Amino acid sequence: VVDPRGTVAEAGERALVDRLRDRLGATPGWLVTGPGDDAAVVESVRGRLEVLTTDALVEGVHFDRRFMSPADVGFRALAVNLSDLAAMGATPRLALLSLALPDSYRLSEFDDLIGGFLELAARARMALAGGNITRSPGPLVVDVMAVGCVKRRRALERRGARPGDALFVSGTIGAAAAGLDWLRSRVGPPGRDDLAAEPCGDMQEPVRRYRRPEPRLRLGRALADGRAATACIDLSDGLADGVQQLAVASGIGFVVDAVSVPVDPAARAWFERAGVDPLQAAMSSDDYELLFTVSSRTRGPLAAVQRLTGGVALARIGTATREAGLTLRRESTEEPIQGGFRHFGPAPR
Amino acid sequence: VVDPRGTVAEAGERALVDRLRDRLGATPGWLVTGPGDDAAVVESVRGRLEVLTTDALVEGVHFDRRFMSPADVGFRALAVNLSDLAAMGATPRLALLSLALPDSYRLSEFDDLIGGFLELAARARMALAGGNITRSPGPLVVDVMAVGCVKRRRALERRGARPGDALFVSGTIGAAAAGLDWLRSRVGPPGRDDLAAEPCGDMQEPVRRYRRPEPRLRLGRALADGRAATACIDLSDGLADGVQQLAVASGIGFVVDAVSVPVDPAARAWFERAGVDPLQAAMSSDDYELLFTVSSRTRGPLAAVQRLTGGVALARIGTATREAGLTLRRESTEEPIQGGFRHFGPAPR
Repeated sequence: VVDPRGTVAEAGERALVDRLRDRLGATPGWLVTGPGDDAAVVESVRGRLEVLTTDALVEGVHFDRRFMSPADVGFRALAVNLSDLAAMGATPRLALLSLALPDSYRLSEFDDLIGGFLELAARARMALAGGNITRSPGPLVVDVMAVGCVKRRRALERRGARPGDALFVSGTIGAAAAGLDWLRSRVGPPGRDDLAAEPCGDMQEPVRRYRRPEPRLRLGRALADGRAATACIDLSDGLADGVQQLAVASGIGFVVDAVSVPVDPAARAWFERAGVDPLQAAMSSDDYELLFTVSSRTRGPLAAVQRLTGGVALARIGTATREAGLTLRRESTEEPIQGGFRHFGPAPR
Repeated sequence: VVDPRGTVAEAGERALVDRLRDRLGATPGWLVTGPGDDAAVVESVRGRLEVLTTDALVEGVHFDRRFMSPADVGFRALAVNLSDLAAMGATPRLALLSLALPDSYRLSEFDDLIGGFLELAARARMALAGGNITRSPGPLVVDVMAVGCVKRRRALERRGARPGDALFVSGTIGAAAAGLDWLRSRVGPPGRDDLAAEPCGDMQEPVRRYRRPEPRLRLGRALADGRAATACIDLSDGLADGVQQLAVASGIGFVVDAVSVPVDPAARAWFERAGVDPLQAAMSSDDYELLFTVSSRTRGPLAAVQRLTGGVALARIGTATREAGLTLRRESTEEPIQGGFRHFGPAPR
């Protein structure tokens, strides 16, 4: 029996792999060889294309251990990858998990990280098919590779938007940035080990959305299967960046109506109290919503999608233009959309 | 025009991705959506199973920038993954590359790392299908996910060895460890930036084998296609570890004949000069050779494999036993095989 208060370095790589394998449920039939061999062997789905993506969370760049529990880190590491699959309209099948762990990381923290990861994996009905565990002489790094499948000619790409297409965004934006702001405002100086105080009231939901974003898998799949969108991207770097990405890939521009952008009410209140323009702040928030375009031909299918995906609100926020360039239309003014340039990763947190 | 002496932080993530995409050749037809979208979309091979693996190189754990050039790091990061595919008998198709780069990493170093990676990718006829680039507040981390394919019921697993099977290893072992030793003996104190002096004479080949291991893709594929092996693993953690892994997975033991183990001559001379038992040192060397078992039924196919794979030497080094346990048979003594326990990653280098 291993003491969970011990460190991962004391336990050793093999014990960690065993510990992880003990947590896995029954292996699906299509997973011919699962974790524990040199590689995973997988039966592909007849008539489907494979969709593959990878995204990493690096401590000190993408998260701060003072206000993200290990389970939050595991959950979020998978969520950001599933959001990429959602943006392609793919159905998740499996993931590989590659961990670089500081020697001092506790076994109990390792267990919790795996737990957060597997919680979302179970919800998305996908298998952890393999991975890698190594030491890190620096930050905790959680790298995930997720694989899904999509019907032929149904994948949602960034490049299909055409002039005149309507621009939609799912859910609300700004909550993740407000939640992160709140968490940052609550932690002490770097080096403090204790998790920030838990939020209550209006900030609970923004904090939850920062720590545990919900990838829009059902919506993405419905948009793809119903051929309802001409182009799609997830908001992993905010709305301003997403609009720019769609514009560049499709060779068009966008006019966005400020009044239509669905800023989360709690986030709006938070930013207003802080003296920050809520719309600008919300437009660089990584909410993992889907941003997509719909042609006049596909508005019928979109109505069907809306029925299928139930509770997810879809807001029409703008229109694609023949002219390149991104314009934000306020009540009486027009301004170029700022913040569309993504720097070398987010600023250290 | 960007100055290659500048840093990756100055260039920004988008410029890095563009720089990388400019280096990619023509996209194969089966790569429906390549780098630049939320995820890659891939046509699978009819009648084949998918094989997926991931392995990371972490600076300070798996390599030292003082004696691995960026191109070596890029090459080796892909090689260790392809070795896993080789051990399954798979043919590589594509890779995803996930980089965490220190802010001070130079653009020219980034270019060279990509160059080393793409050099091996081209040789293995595979595509770089996507990836991720982020900052690292600590070490350089190069995480690779490689995907290949293999015929149904042909994948080489670890668990198929049976009592009486003959144990084989490809090539020679010990060179990688000797090369690493030589490099370590040549570098100054940590913090020195210059690359270690280049080896000449007998140590050239061991150093090359440490920096740029050659995954045994052709051999692995021939073993799989010819149904010549009952179990297989690559020597990513040395022969002692590999023997133990095969034994545990197959529920058997092994007797290894010391005299038959093909220790690289230059490595043997190096370890003898250092007063180290060459066999023990060679048995924990990460040479990325293949270790596999052959039943009496499959010795005919093995002869065919040997003809197909041309120059690769295959040495019979032992026999699988019904009794668990690993025995090294020296000229007049028998001893348990040591070093079969892999610690939490290799010691810091």
